[in-house]
Amino acid sequence: MKNSFGNSVSITLFGESHGAAIGAVLDGLAPGIPVDEGFIAAQMQKRKGLAELSTKRREKDEVKILSGVFNGKTTGTPITFLIENNDKKSNDYSDLRYFPRPSHADYSAHCKYHGFEDYRGGGHFSGRLTAPLVAAGAVAMQALERKGIFIGTHIFECATLRDNAFADYQREIAFLKQAEFPVLNNSVAQQIRQVIGKAAEVGDSVGGILETAVIGMPAGVGEPFFDSLESALAHAMFSIPAVKGVEFGMGFDIAKYLGSKVNDEWRMEEGKAVSVTNHNGGINGGISNGMPIIFKTAVKPTPSIFKDQRTINLATGENATIKIKGRHDPAIIHRARVVADSMTALVLCDMLALRFGTDYLAN
Amino acid sequence: MKNSFGNSVSITLFGESHGAAIGAVLDGLAPGIPVDEGFIAAQMQKRKGLAELSTKRREKDEVKILSGVFNGKTTGTPITFLIENNDKKSNDYSDLRYFPRPSHADYSAHCKYHGFEDYRGGGHFSGRLTAPLVAAGAVAMQALERKGIFIGTHIFECATLRDNAFADYQREIAFLKQAEFPVLNNSVAQQIRQVIGKAAEVGDSVGGILETAVIGMPAGVGEPFFDSLESALAHAMFSIPAVKGVEFGMGFDIAKYLGSKVNDEWRMEEGKAVSVTNHNGGINGGISNGMPIIFKTAVKPTPSIFKDQRTINLATGENATIKIKGRHDPAIIHRARVVADSMTALVLCDMLALRFGTDYLAN
Amino acid sequence: MKNSFGNSVSITLFGESHGAAIGAVLDGLAPGIPVDEGFIAAQMQKRKGLAELSTKRREKDEVKILSGVFNGKTTGTPITFLIENNDKKSNDYSDLRYFPRPSHADYSAHCKYHGFEDYRGGGHFSGRLTAPLVAAGAVAMQALERKGIFIGTHIFECATLRDNAFADYQREIAFLKQAEFPVLNNSVAQQIRQVIGKAAEVGDSVGGILETAVIGMPAGVGEPFFDSLESALAHAMFSIPAVKGVEFGMGFDIAKYLGSKVNDEWRMEEGKAVSVTNHNGGINGGISNGMPIIFKTAVKPTPSIFKDQRTINLATGENATIKIKGRHDPAIIHRARVVADSMTALVLCDMLALRFGTDYLAN
Amino acid sequence: MKNSFGNSVSITLFGESHGAAIGAVLDGLAPGIPVDEGFIAAQMQKRKGLAELSTKRREKDEVKILSGVFNGKTTGTPITFLIENNDKKSNDYSDLRYFPRPSHADYSAHCKYHGFEDYRGGGHFSGRLTAPLVAAGAVAMQALERKGIFIGTHIFECATLRDNAFADYQREIAFLKQAEFPVLNNSVAQQIRQVIGKAAEVGDSVGGILETAVIGMPAGVGEPFFDSLESALAHAMFSIPAVKGVEFGMGFDIAKYLGSKVNDEWRMEEGKAVSVTNHNGGINGGISNGMPIIFKTAVKPTPSIFKDQRTINLATGENATIKIKGRHDPAIIHRARVVADSMTALVLCDMLALRFGTDYLAN
Repeated sequence: MKNSFGNSVSITLFGESHGAAIGAVLDGLAPGIPVDEGFIAAQMQKRKGLAELSTKRREKDEVKILSGVFNGKTTGTPITFLIENNDKKSNDYSDLRYFPRPSHADYSAHCKYHGFEDYRGGGHFSGRLTAPLVAAGAVAMQALERKGIFIGTHIFECATLRDNAFADYQREIAFLKQAEFPVLNNSVAQQIRQVIGKAAEVGDSVGGILETAVIGMPAGVGEPFFDSLESALAHAMFSIPAVKGVEFGMGFDIAKYLGSKVNDEWRMEEGKAVSVTNHNGGINGGISNGMPIIFKTAVKPTPSIFKDQRTINLATGENATIKIKGRHDPAIIHRARVVADSMTALVLCDMLALRFGTDYLAN
Repeated sequence: MKNSFGNSVSITLFGESHGAAIGAVLDGLAPGIPVDEGFIAAQMQKRKGLAELSTKRREKDEVKILSGVFNGKTTGTPITFLIENNDKKSNDYSDLRYFPRPSHADYSAHCKYHGFEDYRGGGHFSGRLTAPLVAAGAVAMQALERKGIFIGTHIFECATLRDNAFADYQREIAFLKQAEFPVLNNSVAQQIRQVIGKAAEVGDSVGGILETAVIGMPAGVGEPFFDSLESALAHAMFSIPAVKGVEFGMGFDIAKYLGSKVNDEWRMEEGKAVSVTNHNGGINGGISNGMPIIFKTAVKPTPSIFKDQRTINLATGENATIKIKGRHDPAIIHRARVVADSMTALVLCDMLALRFGTDYLAN
Repeated sequence: MKNSFGNSVSITLFGESHGAAIGAVLDGLAPGIPVDEGFIAAQMQKRKGLAELSTKRREKDEVKILSGVFNGKTTGTPITFLIENNDKKSNDYSDLRYFPRPSHADYSAHCKYHGFEDYRGGGHFSGRLTAPLVAAGAVAMQALERKGIFIGTHIFECATLRDNAFADYQREIAFLKQAEFPVLNNSVAQQIRQVIGKAAEVGDSVGGILETAVIGMPAGVGEPFFDSLESALAHAMFSIPAVKGVEFGMGFDIAKYLGSKVNDEWRMEEGKAVSVTNHNGGINGGISNGMPIIFKTAVKPTPSIFKDQRTINLATGENATIKIKGRHDPAIIHRARVVADSMTALVLCDMLALRFGTDYLAN
Repeated sequence: MKNSFGNSVSITLFGESHGAAIGAVLDGLAPGIPVDEGFIAAQMQKRKGLAELSTKRREKDEVKILSGVFNGKTTGTPITFLIENNDKKSNDYSDLRYFPRPSHADYSAHCKYHGFEDYRGGGHFSGRLTAPLVAAGAVAMQALERKGIFIGTHIFECATLRDNAFADYQREIAFLKQAEFPVLNNSVAQQIRQVIGKAAEVGDSVGGILETAVIGMPAGVGEPFFDSLESALAHAMFSIPAVKGVEFGMGFDIAKYLGSKVNDEWRMEEGKAVSVTNHNGGINGGISNGMPIIFKTAVKPTPSIFKDQRTINLATGENATIKIKGRHDPAIIHRARVVADSMTALVLCDMLALRFGTDYLAN
């Protein structure tokens, strides 16, 4: 299905950037899970990012839950999250109607939808659609936390800057949960904020790399081949707009080494099998092995920049130049981290429910 | 589904390394497509790799087609590919029964299947299972070629060596189709062969990075969000054993640049929209944009090495040491390229059939 | 997926009878299809049924379209239908909390959701959830009509009364489209209204059998075995609350005859293959054969009746008696016909898009 | 997917009547379930039916298990069942090439596959394809029996004859398990055998109605709306060739009664909730309620009869007459009962695994 994902726990996404509302339907989550609307709001706030580094479009992003929650707990039937679009300036887009913005979905969407697509603000392709994913993900994350499974994501790289890698997972995930700006090393955090600010000043944008860690995941979850945990997580991550790469454990770097240098040997530790290293990122043969799940996600620079760019006129078939107006993010990497957490949580809830049944996360 | 993948065109995979046979069922492919068993055999041969650089297990890999082909053409109903396992030496594995091999699926599979899994030669998790994928992929590739869609994969990196990137797609894809060893630059090819040979000599292994290109893909195929072309292709690639990373276009590198440096501007060229650069790898918003689709896949070093490695004894819960015996590949990167081509072909057939109907690839 | 259905064109359903709102997300419908909100409203009106024969709960059932429609036409991205619940009397249900109503889903839902389900008015299991299906189905029906495919459903049986079978499809389907009460034979219509009215007077309820016809369906749509057109249509029909049987063509009666009496022989008629009879209801081997598709659906009497009924107390585990209060339908058969039309339209849109591509229904 | 069915436990079917082999891949079944090849053979024998009442095509139907079983138990990975076609007489079909047999899939398949379909013996549409379903179903049935879930099917009606309805489930299901001819009432059994024999003598055929019962199914399994237990079971039943109707509990008859006559009231019995009657066939709101699951399936008369029938010539577009040759069943109802059991078992394994996890059926 096109805008649905998951098997036992699934998400369906709808809406356009400048339509009436955006939202998501989360189905299959176990009954009896407390839904903390305060936590949802906190996650929405993280997704907004720091005001000075983010779009000037200021949506309240109030999440209304229309179904599936009764007396503060999940019922087990579909949970619907609705977010109204209030701060639209659709006129900013009327000039762009026939001029596909470079590296946006405008041209490919036009080829698919033959001009009937809602072109305003990227329509259904807008990063704004990640807001309901974050709302759904907040409920999923809370369900997982009750089972001792915690997820956190930080900016690992931005431009030439690099944060510390995860090392002390539990503490760092807790830190990220309350962090305004998701960087582990404070001085790197300051530098990244400057880099983003500087890009904004000159009407340009930057990208970055996210690192996500999951702790507490039981071993034995995932499938060989097509529903490998890596396949499912990558599928989910690549559905986030602007993502261009996903790697697990050492990822691309592992290709540089001899097997003897990167194999993860096994040891018993306090009666539990652990690997001495975790170059595979907690997954072997597509199945969780009990170690932390670690992966990185590459996010491209926001394609909306305030510079002259070459494009074409879809109406006339001629070459053209555009200069994008409107309110845009100089970077989305700091906002995307909570989207990465959310998609991860949704995938894991699904995989756990498939493995251990629909009551696994229930009260 | 666990060992099935695809919607309109789907593949189901079965078998174990040391069982009676392995195979695949390819369903949904259009009727009337000529099936060239010679091409299937040629692809199987590419998957075997150069004898001197590959496992000494010498399977004939004769592909029997049990259904779905009539008078040399696809019928439109399920095509079954069967490959018998002939050259098994299961005794090599009896010592390993309770000792999970580092970086293999042994331990995670044990957690999932509780000891009932066929542990011999990795059982269902063996790279051998990619053989029927290649057989199915061969039929899919031929179907695509009749529509002008061509796929090729080369070793982009191995250890510290780097091949030329794709530049002259049509010629290079044609070259790779008949190449024994899939490297574009001949002197790099020699060096990579030496690196693999040297690893074999010392009982070690190497990994690498594959680069895949698809040309001729029409614009407008793929879905926003969860069935993005990137999601589907990455899902497929991560189902290949040993893959740890997938990236499209510039991939992880794109995160280092300003938006103004990496946006793909549009131009008209001979009445057709083309992008000046292709940093996005032919996909915007999850949908093909008519440019070549380009992605890279990281393959880890074969985890089977002939050195002492630390592990645990699953029967006793104690630490242990193993030394793997048997016949193993010092590298699979040169063999995996045809698996990458095959999975790509299967994904594209599915996406094209969803977009344009089940007759799109028909005679 | 649990509350989602369909592959290329899919529907996701959400909401509870006494929650804030109910709705559906319709995904995958081709772009450029005109959406006539007047027709949606007309269909909603048919679903309400005649006021004197239907529940006294009087919902306005105003359908808000939140996404997927732009400038009056489908965009190709998810269409969201939202209907607010306004006329709720949840107090009617507080007494029933622990007393499962006979032949309702109360007890089975309790076993599944462990008491966290929204029990008010049947919660997610309410027939009210069919309202958004009708809204989505209205768009699907209009898309089909533009391709010459028309659907109609009438009450074939109610109690001991029997309507005429379909005979003059085109005319009768057109008649049903505007009929207030869906019975072909006018005198039977009057009698059925009386039967329903009489049941209402005594606090009882009646069921019935619907007959659905589809004309204009091209031959060659559907799959052998698991995605047979019969499987898909039956799957959809059995998802309508209160449906207990589905049969195609002669259905159960065909079992009584010799093959020589019921085989559908083929003839050429005006250059087109037609069958002399249509005992198979337009489907052979799971695939449409170009004849009208005919099936019947059995709808049980509304389980809510105003009589003392034996039940149990879920809180104490003791036997008990309940008398249902509230506002209920003495029959739903006359309202369900438009739900049958809608589900049929959704299935056919999906099957046609799979067969002929996502643009098949496009402008 | 087209020839695949199920989510957590799935089946993929392949083969043609006159091809090399037919088979099925059963994926997702829990590890550690004993596989009794003797029981598989016994089920295959039941599917063959009594020699004097069945096709003269005498296939050995030896089931080879190619994967997924190790040391006599399921591994948890795909189980492949292969059955070779040995007794083919394809010449019987060469005359029929362009003459679609009435009530067979020949014409609709031709419209779908454009003449590339394997037309011999119905090709992929042959009832012969149910043989691997029975093999897979045998494993599924044994898995269920270990959890106390038992399934049985008898001929409820054939021509004007009617068997006793199920009454003493446990005893009758046990009886059917070893019965050569699946009729509860012995004198009715004799009469039905005569009716089938008489049809055979005159080159005609008969159909019938099957009644299936499931006991021991836990309450709380199934989904509201689209994955209702009724939807899933009906989907599966309608994928069996020749099935034209499915009804649960009272089925179509329920439409004749007042709600007060057919509602299933609840009582406590030995600490367990039971319904006084079971007119709903063990399912409310799409979810099992703990009572026996009861449904009926209508099977049409075998369309192959040895009489002159009118048809068309697909090559010339002219009217024609055919007389079918070859070896055909005068009835399949007595053979289909084990197919109904098998499909039921596969659906229930899937639903139970989704509900309670993939280990639910494990050793």
